[in-house]
Amino acid sequence: MDKDEIRNLHPTEIRKLIRKGEFSSSTEGCADGYAQANLVILPEKNAFDFLLFCHRNPKPCPVLEVTEPGDYNLKDLAEGADVRTDLPRYRIYEKGECVGDVEQIVDLWRDDLVAFMIGCSYSFESALLKANIRLRHIELGEIVSVYFTNQPCKPAGIFKGPMVTSMRPIRRDQLVRVIQICSRFPAVHGAPVHVGDPGKLGIVDMDKPNFGWKPEIGADEVPVFWGCGITPQAVAMKAEVDFMITHYPGHMFITDRLSEEFAVL
Amino acid sequence: MDKDEIRNLHPTEIRKLIRKGEFSSSTEGCADGYAQANLVILPEKNAFDFLLFCHRNPKPCPVLEVTEPGDYNLKDLAEGADVRTDLPRYRIYEKGECVGDVEQIVDLWRDDLVAFMIGCSYSFESALLKANIRLRHIELGEIVSVYFTNQPCKPAGIFKGPMVTSMRPIRRDQLVRVIQICSRFPAVHGAPVHVGDPGKLGIVDMDKPNFGWKPEIGADEVPVFWGCGITPQAVAMKAEVDFMITHYPGHMFITDRLSEEFAVL
Repeated sequence: MDKDEIRNLHPTEIRKLIRKGEFSSSTEGCADGYAQANLVILPEKNAFDFLLFCHRNPKPCPVLEVTEPGDYNLKDLAEGADVRTDLPRYRIYEKGECVGDVEQIVDLWRDDLVAFMIGCSYSFESALLKANIRLRHIELGEIVSVYFTNQPCKPAGIFKGPMVTSMRPIRRDQLVRVIQICSRFPAVHGAPVHVGDPGKLGIVDMDKPNFGWKPEIGADEVPVFWGCGITPQAVAMKAEVDFMITHYPGHMFITDRLSEEFAVL
Repeated sequence: MDKDEIRNLHPTEIRKLIRKGEFSSSTEGCADGYAQANLVILPEKNAFDFLLFCHRNPKPCPVLEVTEPGDYNLKDLAEGADVRTDLPRYRIYEKGECVGDVEQIVDLWRDDLVAFMIGCSYSFESALLKANIRLRHIELGEIVSVYFTNQPCKPAGIFKGPMVTSMRPIRRDQLVRVIQICSRFPAVHGAPVHVGDPGKLGIVDMDKPNFGWKPEIGADEVPVFWGCGITPQAVAMKAEVDFMITHYPGHMFITDRLSEEFAVL
């Protein structure tokens, strides 16, 4: 089965292939219309602080589902899906340091682990494309431009640090429509956090994103910044939590929920 | 100063009077336009489960702010407000039983307590009234009709139980507008959870609400049900948590945030 065929399957079918080890690539573009989720797994002792951190910072950290301690099965996003096997690739951290990448985490699972599923910007990008909004990084096949900022998140317990943002150049004549569309999706980062002036976020050089596409911003375009799902991971790394597992960048959990199910109005 | 004068003060002024023991009545109608909040205080050992319960059941339990364990000062809803003194009246529970009502809880405060501030329907009622929606219980000066249902909340840890709803008869020609308006306010219970058929919620006799107004539903009206902020308290009582403090019914925390600040679109 080639990659295009796999991408057009239903989420349950793709997750079955992932579980069997037959699909371990980036999930970008998979199962069009279905929401994907970032994964952060932490020990129970950090769970309240982390949930509180996410609750206080919903734009970068919109929580879609949280498992009970020790429970590796999801209920809402995909009934019975197993967070230990149903993502294509994972990243392991100890004391805030990355110590390896693996394709499943069955052997690493513990009775005190809690899985946080966090909304992913693929959902609102899909809504923007359907409204004929131009998204340059997608046209070019690039990864979205990501910038660390000087804007502090609201701290909670041991978790604190600046917000990470994704930036998309938006045509001025489409800016209002972009804000309207994204505002419908608070569960997947929602409305932008800033429009227009990178300096206000402490970004000195737009030509040096921390990750992704080095943007070209046209004369008719304005840089628009959204809260980015890298934020909770960055904050957990900075807190040097004993143990953390996340999805591998771009290798998300594919849910059974259509993005549109999360729209507020 | 008479009651009407007090009601027209800014929230900071009303809270100052409450703190001095000079205002201990119901906060209904106080500081028009400003959001009010339900209060639930629980020990830290129950805090993750309770926050998770609220997160899984956002319609009855929309969380506006949560304090750090031991911290009795708010930040977002009202900078520096003290949850021990700034509500007019509190209710104390031990092992799920009400053991008394008090006007402040300074002596009861402990280093392991966490305060949860939960959205209150006064905010969306105010938005409905401003749009000329008829709300019969308010016209009559009655307390909104409250019904327990057979609809289970999503459980989290020790917290489980049925959803409690508030019911307002809505004119059929205003129903669509009511749903549009409430949908803008997910932080204060948001869109209705059910329209039209009380039997679907397991409500056998509409003439016997569990609290509040015994409704008269006109021929041109339909019963509309919203998730009610009594739900989290009812669930915590049922879980027989060792210790809990809540606001006394109708005696809410008055925030410095305008209801409109919580609107999503």
